[in-house]
Amino acid sequence: MKKAVVLLSGGLDSAVTLYLAKRSGFKCSCLIFDYGQRHRKEIEAAKKISAAAHCPARLVKIDLSWKGSSLLDKKIKIPSGRRQGIPSTYVPGRNIIFLSFALSYAEAIAAKAVFIGAHIEDYPGYPDCRPEFFRAFAGVIACGTKSGVRKQSIKILTPLIRKTKAQIIKTGTRLKVPFGLTWSCYAGAKAPCGKCDSCYFRAKGFQEAGLEDEGKNSRDF
Amino acid sequence: MKKAVVLLSGGLDSAVTLYLAKRSGFKCSCLIFDYGQRHRKEIEAAKKISAAAHCPARLVKIDLSWKGSSLLDKKIKIPSGRRQGIPSTYVPGRNIIFLSFALSYAEAIAAKAVFIGAHIEDYPGYPDCRPEFFRAFAGVIACGTKSGVRKQSIKILTPLIRKTKAQIIKTGTRLKVPFGLTWSCYAGAKAPCGKCDSCYFRAKGFQEAGLEDEGKNSRDF
Repeated sequence: MKKAVVLLSGGLDSAVTLYLAKRSGFKCSCLIFDYGQRHRKEIEAAKKISAAAHCPARLVKIDLSWKGSSLLDKKIKIPSGRRQGIPSTYVPGRNIIFLSFALSYAEAIAAKAVFIGAHIEDYPGYPDCRPEFFRAFAGVIACGTKSGVRKQSIKILTPLIRKTKAQIIKTGTRLKVPFGLTWSCYAGAKAPCGKCDSCYFRAKGFQEAGLEDEGKNSRDF
Repeated sequence: MKKAVVLLSGGLDSAVTLYLAKRSGFKCSCLIFDYGQRHRKEIEAAKKISAAAHCPARLVKIDLSWKGSSLLDKKIKIPSGRRQGIPSTYVPGRNIIFLSFALSYAEAIAAKAVFIGAHIEDYPGYPDCRPEFFRAFAGVIACGTKSGVRKQSIKILTPLIRKTKAQIIKTGTRLKVPFGLTWSCYAGAKAPCGKCDSCYFRAKGFQEAGLEDEGKNSRDF
């Protein structure tokens, strides 16, 4: 059975990605990052999602103490509502770091692919979620790793890349993704704030999909 | 004064790179990694080199517990002498991870460049030391970071890339790099083993440069 490493944040996009990877026949190992994010609750969510999917998970602790983001620095306010341009929640180099670790892990366990749940509604604000970024990263793998040099490059797979949040939610519903276990809010409180970017896009996605969000008010999952 | 992040391993290549970066007029911040390497002595060496150069240093701890390298796994023997192909000391994704952190740090402190001491004699064994790898990584920065999107990409600078070890040693000697503080041996003992790849290339470099290695027998620097 071919192996894959799946980046799991605890949010709904990566949860759907994990279920898609499993359905594609991959034996999945999840990678969860503790990078000092203020919404640490997503880490516990990610652990529960991997357990629900019967996939092993590793938690990797990352030191980004230089911060440079409102997700890491509580002195910077989390922006509310719809975003324009690159928001303060952008974390310098985040997906490059995450993919680098996933790549290292994949090469060490002879996995063929790394899955990441980036999608079309992430692009405007987060450059490291764009298709051209993933293509560029594939170029790094091709010439900068043992697997690449041997013409067996580990693939970066982004099954959600062209989907909207509503489409992702519909796909996840079909795959029985446990949305009640997922956590999206950036604010870091016990319950979702309902105001931040991430809450906004989650609510909009469920509304457009015509589905009820079972995780919306979950205070203690 | 323009800022730069310099990757510092504790070996002589990165020490020379730091001194070159300083001479080029950069205000340098060093990044040192504890990634579980068996030759942990290089970490202390790196700290002393940054202090000697009067540059601040950050130590970043990285979890590569999946190993996949003789530098991380004491059950695998360190190869002796001249290497052929990719040696067991190759660490999956190492320079990609190091550069990713350096990039994140650089973007957070508004640095213009990241320096790394890769060079021509590293290429055959380590794909992540080749010029094409650094070019590919520049492509990732251009499309996957805030600085890149704003057409102010952080530059990856490799001033040693075309130099041999002997040339690097000659350059370092001119710049008064404290070679006595550097540490190259992979084996992880108190004194250099004199047999591993890294000891071999260091000795060969000093011999070809016609210079004495003041760090060769340093047991307690």
